[in-house]
Amino acid sequence: MTLERFEEQDFFACCGSTRFAKEMASAYPFTSLDDAISAARNIWFNKVDVNGWLEAFSAHPAIGQSPSSAHASHASAQWSKGEQSTALATSTASTLQELSDGNAQYRQKFGFVFLICASGRSTAEILAELKKRFQNRPIVEFEIAAQEQMKITELRLGKLFSTKSIAASTGNQ
Amino acid sequence: MTLERFEEQDFFACCGSTRFAKEMASAYPFTSLDDAISAARNIWFNKVDVNGWLEAFSAHPAIGQSPSSAHASHASAQWSKGEQSTALATSTASTLQELSDGNAQYRQKFGFVFLICASGRSTAEILAELKKRFQNRPIVEFEIAAQEQMKITELRLGKLFSTKSIAASTGNQ
Repeated sequence: MTLERFEEQDFFACCGSTRFAKEMASAYPFTSLDDAISAARNIWFNKVDVNGWLEAFSAHPAIGQSPSSAHASHASAQWSKGEQSTALATSTASTLQELSDGNAQYRQKFGFVFLICASGRSTAEILAELKKRFQNRPIVEFEIAAQEQMKITELRLGKLFSTKSIAASTGNQ
Repeated sequence: MTLERFEEQDFFACCGSTRFAKEMASAYPFTSLDDAISAARNIWFNKVDVNGWLEAFSAHPAIGQSPSSAHASHASAQWSKGEQSTALATSTASTLQELSDGNAQYRQKFGFVFLICASGRSTAEILAELKKRFQNRPIVEFEIAAQEQMKITELRLGKLFSTKSIAASTGNQ
């Protein structure tokens, strides 16, 4: 089965790099989710340059904060909320404040938002990761952030495929 | 002996990152060139973020081309010419064209200028390096470019120290 109706903006919602979205749209159609993830990994790590990585990072809200109007897309904003649901459920006013302070210090040191695949992670786990990663050299942290972005992209591609499949089956009934 | 009269703009001519220049000016005075180089390495690799690396890269002309008016400073432009003197002396119209084409492809893939410590290197050597490095993943090439920038910075700090020492001795006569 070839999945239908994927457009550049769908891929941009998965990963907010213009180059990534264009290359995914060119590589389309995919025969399966695995096929799409494999193409996405190749594009993200081999073709998107460092400016594209920074562009994609800037599409994310700070962890614990609501997506801003500058967010890449409605789908991306909704997914971001869902990915942070465990963190939000396990947070308190005090841990949220700590996260906010940690985020600000992180951005001050590295020049981009603290990026973590938050899905299923508690606020305490995220805070521990933030403190650990804050010690890294900027170039090391840059590559870790790119790996986290790839994890987020994979989860979102999965959601995209399931949404579109459901839409396609509903349309066929 | 403490070397006198180093300012932020002197360090900016060595490496066109604002953060680098500010941090070097804060770390000043240095007791020796080795002391300055050691501070510079720490600042460049541990404190300057990836945006600062891109800022510094953008202060360089493409290899084989004249420094533009956007060049960081007069000193930086003069040093750049000197660093490329071996390459220019060994170049032909054909190799210069190849270098220009290679530079354009490199910038297209990586999003920044091809950076190499050209001092003492022939055009043929530089072209061979460009072809080899063009195969790299963007993140790998980003770190190599930063290492080349550090080599250039070290050479320029050496020139800065010798210039200032000469100026100081002349002033003392």
